[in-house]
Order: sequence, then C-alpha cells, then structure tokens
Amino acid sequence: MSEYDDETRLEAGDGPGVHHGTFHEEWMIGNAVNGGLVMAAGLGALGRHLSADPGERTPHADPVVLSAYFMTASTPGPFTVTTEAMRCGRALSTGQISISQVGPDGVPVERMRALGSFGDLADVETLTQASPPDMPPPGQCVSSRQAPPECLANMRFLDRLDLRLDPSSAGWAMGRPSLKGEIRGWLRMADHREPDTTLLMMALDALPPVAFDLGILGWTPTLEFTGHVRRRPEPGWLQVALTSQNVGGGMMEEDAMVWDSAGHLVAQSRQLCGVRHPPARSD
Amino acid sequence: MSEYDDETRLEAGDGPGVHHGTFHEEWMIGNAVNGGLVMAAGLGALGRHLSADPGERTPHADPVVLSAYFMTASTPGPFTVTTEAMRCGRALSTGQISISQVGPDGVPVERMRALGSFGDLADVETLTQASPPDMPPPGQCVSSRQAPPECLANMRFLDRLDLRLDPSSAGWAMGRPSLKGEIRGWLRMADHREPDTTLLMMALDALPPVAFDLGILGWTPTLEFTGHVRRRPEPGWLQVALTSQNVGGGMMEEDAMVWDSAGHLVAQSRQLCGVRHPPARSD
Repeated sequence: MSEYDDETRLEAGDGPGVHHGTFHEEWMIGNAVNGGLVMAAGLGALGRHLSADPGERTPHADPVVLSAYFMTASTPGPFTVTTEAMRCGRALSTGQISISQVGPDGVPVERMRALGSFGDLADVETLTQASPPDMPPPGQCVSSRQAPPECLANMRFLDRLDLRLDPSSAGWAMGRPSLKGEIRGWLRMADHREPDTTLLMMALDALPPVAFDLGILGWTPTLEFTGHVRRRPEPGWLQVALTSQNVGGGMMEEDAMVWDSAGHLVAQSRQLCGVRHPPARSD
Repeated sequence: MSEYDDETRLEAGDGPGVHHGTFHEEWMIGNAVNGGLVMAAGLGALGRHLSADPGERTPHADPVVLSAYFMTASTPGPFTVTTEAMRCGRALSTGQISISQVGPDGVPVERMRALGSFGDLADVETLTQASPPDMPPPGQCVSSRQAPPECLANMRFLDRLDLRLDPSSAGWAMGRPSLKGEIRGWLRMADHREPDTTLLMMALDALPPVAFDLGILGWTPTLEFTGHVRRRPEPGWLQVALTSQNVGGGMMEEDAMVWDSAGHLVAQSRQLCGVRHPPARSD
C-alpha cells in the first residue's frame, strides 16, 4: 500500500455517514496538517457514503468539485469525518463533509467543512483547454529536496512528494521572487503512487504558496478552497501551475491548474488565502 | 426602496437561523430564479444571523466568500433560508446556508446549499490587481434591451439590470461568437440602486453565459459557484469580464471579475457549469 493510501485510510464508524482516520506527522506543514491531505481524507469518506446510498442510481466514482472552508488547523492524531448525502442526481451526487478532532478539553473542534459533488469522469472528451506551461523536463528543474533544511523542516509533507520547480519560477527560493505571481512545477508521489481523481484535489494544494513569488514569505492560510476535477489523469508526472493577480485587504487568491502526462487539463482550483505580512506597496 | 432590496427582503422566522422570503417572477431566467439573486437572499440571511450571534466580537458586515451548490431550480414563490453559525473568528465569521421551497406535495425541497464567510471590507488597500478590461464607454456598448424579444422573454431578470455589452464580445448575439470564451460588459441596476458587497455576488452571475461566446447556446446550469468579494464598490457602473478556457466531459468553468467605477477589482468568481449541448469538436 502506498504512503498516501495508508495515510488517508478510513475506518467505518457508527452509520454510513461516519468515518474515522488518523492524521500523520508526515503530512505537516508548519503547525498544521496539509490542507490537501485533509480534503483527500474528507473526499474519501464522502465518496464511500454516496456510493453506499440506495438513492444513487449511477456510479459516481470521481470527485468533480469540492469547496472547503478551513476553520481551525488540523493536527496529527485521530479525526472523525461526518458526511451527509444531499442529492443523488443523474450526473452528480452531492454531499457535505465535516472533519473534526477532539480538543485538549475533550470537546470536538471542527477543522474543515466542505460541500462537494461526485460524478463519472470515465471517457471524458476534452473540447477546449488551457495549454500546459512550457517548462524544462523534471531532470532540469529544481527539486524541493534542494531546499534549505530549515525550510524542509517546516514542510515535512514535501517528503511524500517528488516536486520539481521550473527554475524560472523558483527565484523566490534564492531571495529573488519574479513578482509575477507564478510558480510552476512537476509533481508526483515520492513512492510513485499514480494519480487518481481524489489525489488531484491534493495536488492542487501541494506546491509552495504562489505568495512566495510575490515576495510574501509569511504564512498565507487557506480560508476557502474550491477545486474542480475535469478528467481522470493518465499515469506519470503531473504539471502544476499557480498564479495570483489580486492582493489586498489582507487576502489574495491562488489559482492552480494541473495537467497530466498526456497534456490534458485534469483539474483546476482557486483558493482565498489570508495575507498577514504583505510586502511593501510597490506603486 | 429599490427593486432589488424589495425583492430580497427577508422576514425573521422561528429562531436566529430561520428567515422567510419570496422569489419574484421578475428575476426568472428560463424556468428558474436567477442564481445570483438566490445567493444574495441567502447571504442576507447569513449576515443577519452572524451579526446577531453573541460569539461575534467584531463587525463582519461584508460577505467575503460564498460557495454555493445548486441542487434544484428555484421557482417564484415563498422560500425559507436556514442558516448556521459555524465559526466566529477575528477576521472572518463563517456559516452555512440552506434555501428550500415547499414542493407541490407539501414536502420542502432544498434549492441551494452554501458555505460562506463574512468579514470587514472597509478601508481595504489594494496592493496588486488585474486591470479592468479596455472597452468602449456604456453609451457605445450593446444594451441587453436590444436583444431579440424571444431572448428577453427567456431572461426576464434582465429588466432589473442595465447591461451594456462590449460590441467586440457580443458577436454571438448575431450568430458570430468569437470562440475566445470572453464576454465583457458594463452593469448597474436599472433603478440605479448602487452596488454593495452583497449585490456584487449577484453581479458575478448576471451576464449572459460565457458559453455563448464559445458557440454553446444551450442551457449551462450552474453546478457550483464560488465568489470572492475583495473590496466595497464605489457607486456607479460595474465592469464585468467573463472568461472560460476549459470545456469537456459535459462541463466548463466560467470565471468572472468585477471592477467598480474607480477601477478597483472588487469581486471575482469561478463557477462549474453543465454543458448539455456542446458545439462540434473543432480540433
């Protein structure tokens, strides 16, 4: 079993809408568990719940859209996912996810609430799509393993990934952000576990924050994340491109697109991030 | 009282989390009530609920982010909004919205479920932003009132708006879509009611579907919509630009950006739409 599968494993709880799991230290970023992994765990539970629902008439195996609100930081240890089937339609089945952890005082604290829909992404025909970015092959990119040790210590989950950044969008790591708001890279799992539609939702949130390329080096917590999965990915490397255009009022957006090894656009997302330490105004 | 305010008016129901209202025929598009109006009504109820919550320590008067899932089409007539306060934090207060209408058999049917956060968008400083589109002034644009009567009959809510499309992105109305996936226009309320942060969420979903400019003329229902409001708008015309890059598998995204009369980026959104009748594959 792959590291990712082992670390998003769920046990059925009391009823179809309750599952239990454990967040692992290996997925930490700073003092929190990586939001992408939290979403993947929640999607796993919702997918099981919806497919077990007698109201579901057609197989909706693929997460298609997820909107997640992060209320408190997830920490290593047990968690509970509570799900609700809201609507089982012809094309999509839609439900709600709540992930909670028991706090030090014994009271459950909600970490993330999300709404999402599952559908069938087999045999998707792509009519028009954004082209994958033009970037050097993985062997000519900058591996996240080359990052300074103090940086890696703060992003433990990078050990789970094989991430290679396009050198032209990695200047921020040397103190020279391009200020364009662009980060591009190749991504696969370190143990070569192949991508699927649930893993794509994690991949959308796996790169360093695009804020870094704008000279914003502080913590930019995800307030809200919405991801769309558009196609089942082919095996192999994923290409991920992040952009941001709008920073102000203590917030910014981070847009992500992911292409598979065949060059298909397979997922995209936008998240609203908090900006606690903006750079000096440039204009 | 403006048409918009009158038609999103809510009555307090039984408890802080219940409000009642009525959807008006004047907001119909096809056989449904305009989704933007449904979201504005829901936000009104959540805003009241959060500001009434004793847990709220700071005034969070502005909707900042909303993620809405449309499960069934809203119809003219009474509706109930049920809201839940999820978290009242320093910067944001977050909650859940459910809008339902009683069906012909007397059973409530959920129309929309949403998650959203309120914050304080007074005195926002914009650090970087996307530039407003270069387009002719409203007087040199194509008014939606010039649309064919059969088209207007199907989009009754356009009577509530003063919408002027950039002629270079309105060719689809004459059977000549640009196929770039771009629609731009000026927008204000027909009765000159000035925009506020809740109205912006409606404005994000008020233009004709960007699908039209890709030659997709069928119904493209919103499956999921997430909007970010970034700043309180100045009075006057709004500029709205829609784009779409990815169509396939019976779905497409529609991205929207809104600028106020001072040229500030005030809101943006992405929605996932169903595509039931795609154009012939061009490549």
